[in-house]
Amino acid sequence: MTIERQVDDKYLTTFIHESEAGHAEGMIYPENEEEIVEAVKKAQAEGKKLVTIGGHTALAGGTYPQGEILLNLEKMNQILDLDKETLTLTVEAGVTLSQVRDYLAGSGYFYAPDPGEKRATVAGNAATNAGGMRAIKYGVTRDNIRSMRVVLANGEVINVGSLNNKDSSGYDLKDLFIGSEGTLGIISQLQLKLRVEPKYENSLLIGFDRLEELGPVIYEILHSSVAPTALEMFEHDAITYAEELLGKEMPSKTGQAFLLVTLSGNQEAAIQKDLENLEEIAQNAGALATELLSGQVEKGVWDIRDHILSGIYKAGPMRLDDPVVPVNKITQAINKSKEIADDLGIASTFFGHAGDGNIHICLMKKELSDQEWEDRLHQYDLRLYDFLAENGGLPSGEHGIGLERVKFMPIFFSETELNTMKAIKKALDPNNLLNPGRVIEVDE
Amino acid sequence: MTIERQVDDKYLTTFIHESEAGHAEGMIYPENEEEIVEAVKKAQAEGKKLVTIGGHTALAGGTYPQGEILLNLEKMNQILDLDKETLTLTVEAGVTLSQVRDYLAGSGYFYAPDPGEKRATVAGNAATNAGGMRAIKYGVTRDNIRSMRVVLANGEVINVGSLNNKDSSGYDLKDLFIGSEGTLGIISQLQLKLRVEPKYENSLLIGFDRLEELGPVIYEILHSSVAPTALEMFEHDAITYAEELLGKEMPSKTGQAFLLVTLSGNQEAAIQKDLENLEEIAQNAGALATELLSGQVEKGVWDIRDHILSGIYKAGPMRLDDPVVPVNKITQAINKSKEIADDLGIASTFFGHAGDGNIHICLMKKELSDQEWEDRLHQYDLRLYDFLAENGGLPSGEHGIGLERVKFMPIFFSETELNTMKAIKKALDPNNLLNPGRVIEVDE
Repeated sequence: MTIERQVDDKYLTTFIHESEAGHAEGMIYPENEEEIVEAVKKAQAEGKKLVTIGGHTALAGGTYPQGEILLNLEKMNQILDLDKETLTLTVEAGVTLSQVRDYLAGSGYFYAPDPGEKRATVAGNAATNAGGMRAIKYGVTRDNIRSMRVVLANGEVINVGSLNNKDSSGYDLKDLFIGSEGTLGIISQLQLKLRVEPKYENSLLIGFDRLEELGPVIYEILHSSVAPTALEMFEHDAITYAEELLGKEMPSKTGQAFLLVTLSGNQEAAIQKDLENLEEIAQNAGALATELLSGQVEKGVWDIRDHILSGIYKAGPMRLDDPVVPVNKITQAINKSKEIADDLGIASTFFGHAGDGNIHICLMKKELSDQEWEDRLHQYDLRLYDFLAENGGLPSGEHGIGLERVKFMPIFFSETELNTMKAIKKALDPNNLLNPGRVIEVDE
Repeated sequence: MTIERQVDDKYLTTFIHESEAGHAEGMIYPENEEEIVEAVKKAQAEGKKLVTIGGHTALAGGTYPQGEILLNLEKMNQILDLDKETLTLTVEAGVTLSQVRDYLAGSGYFYAPDPGEKRATVAGNAATNAGGMRAIKYGVTRDNIRSMRVVLANGEVINVGSLNNKDSSGYDLKDLFIGSEGTLGIISQLQLKLRVEPKYENSLLIGFDRLEELGPVIYEILHSSVAPTALEMFEHDAITYAEELLGKEMPSKTGQAFLLVTLSGNQEAAIQKDLENLEEIAQNAGALATELLSGQVEKGVWDIRDHILSGIYKAGPMRLDDPVVPVNKITQAINKSKEIADDLGIASTFFGHAGDGNIHICLMKKELSDQEWEDRLHQYDLRLYDFLAENGGLPSGEHGIGLERVKFMPIFFSETELNTMKAIKKALDPNNLLNPGRVIEVDE
């Protein structure tokens, strides 16, 4: 187990605290579960706090250190077993999404969760219950993890979940730990659910004149017989950042607001029929253009979609939001966010997972002073989150609460609901050892 | 709120305690959430214990009273709202599965969970995380509940879950309450996920000479492109009980062990193609016969399948078990259970949800004395559960732990795992007010 007293600068910042370094008391690199246990017991004995870090890709400040010791799991990066009978991949916590993808390439199997950031670890994805493009068909990370080994705050280790497809045997600890952002225990090992790769895949790009037109089409698709693998949305402005970054144009882009739908399956004829159904839905809803995509053109459009965030990111200081709303509120939520941003003089654009109601709003600093930027973001947050709470939405669909959104939790949850979460945190981590201050605040 | 001091005899027994009456201090029938709150506060103040009961269909003794007050939710039976935009049905806790089915008939929507017992309440199904026939395609109850209102042991009410399709906003309380069998809170209201009914449905009955042949076919189907709506298994013996009960013969039954597969969708041609794929898989695996079923014949075969349990039940005293194993262990588990039952001189037969690894073993008392029956069941349990635990199985796939299986929990869970569950129970119900002794034992 390597212990560093002096923590590399890069770990003192995160995506949303790029210019402002946090501070850490040190960094520990456990190489196996026993070393995590050792670190936990030592920290517990010495009254220290631990913050677990994986791929260093947290988007809500979960790993931004506030004086704690960083527990870095990047050396626990072994893929341990592929079980083809139960379709299960057993991996250590620090294995990344790209490692999993490379390992399975050519096997005929795949792990469905598909967040944009492939350097993220599977344990980090489990901690935040990450989503991604394919959640509409295959569910989020929660739905694709069979079991996990977890080191508790007292240094004991438990197994949660199993390889069974059904379970009515005791409390569902697996789903409690998933999404708890490392505040209840440290994931050391995971068993991932694999699926058999579909043989065929095609996409359809649908362009609309106005954003408002997307909403009815989204839920018409969701209510139809078509079960898309991905149902993404973005606006024209958002594309331009990706085009600039990649130095190439999106092959087809008639319209201001777009839906990108992918279908996959093992029956080519069935996919074609579904694509026709989709085209009909789109045309009846007044789409400006529908374009069937396959081969290199399909790849090109997806490439643009995949680079929207990095394009915006490269264009200058920005903040990425992650709200989610019920599917019948998507366009209202986007319009509201644009209205608030415009009103406050913040430049903004969006893309998102339309099928899930999960909107990624990108707010851009542009010419604002640091103080203006900070003040306006705060105003924006208060106004947007009020709107979301009134409309049944939540502050995070897939990135987590981290350190950043804790203060907004009372907008979305009652005191009793927060107290219920706190009671669980206190029951499992009475000394607030693990990721303190993340997700919920507890008194010590 | 009606309060009965004298509890009707029928509530003092359960499915597995038919001849042995429990005792209850009284029965309360709250008519709304406020009256649940009132009952909880009163019980808390007076140091009483509450056991929540819904459709009185518990299969693991969860509602078998041991001196507690029964809290009967059957009067909270209103369907409150159908939201077609988010495909959500809002119901009170005491609404039954058959009420939901009748309400949605002809609407084009359906609620996917399909446990055999339609008199069960949706809240009871949520409490045990019930499964049913269609779990292989649509998931179990857990996967089909969007949100719930829950009355806590302190009399406060929380909402868990939401109408959002994704959620990385705080601890997953919804999944903690689902499957906790009423030990952490009392569900008062639920929002159910609805789906659009598929247009076409067909089934295939596959007969094999030997039970052992089922295993490889089950996972070949699971690994194929075919996504069945149901994948059931049963043996020839089991069918005879249903035939006797219904007074009719199964239309087709060549073989000793059967798989019954149902496919559904909106493209008739795609279903036909998948049925051909299934037939090919079955024939390559040495099936004696495959029969495509539709219309009245399909209905007839499913009718037989649906009446296996009631047929066995009518034939005399029996016990229904509910173990689950990883899908690659199904035939070994069935064989093991038969071997143990034979060895102990207990008559047995089985049916089960093959796609989920969930086996319903029916042990029949026949000519055994009460004492022999009890002793042999105990021997059987110890031997079967050891086998299950060694093979990654669990004691309950869909019926729950209830009162009956609590003593076997240490075979499947480590002391630390059980202590983690106990810590949560103590955090949320420190006085052990709710369903005491169910799922886990806690010290008071």
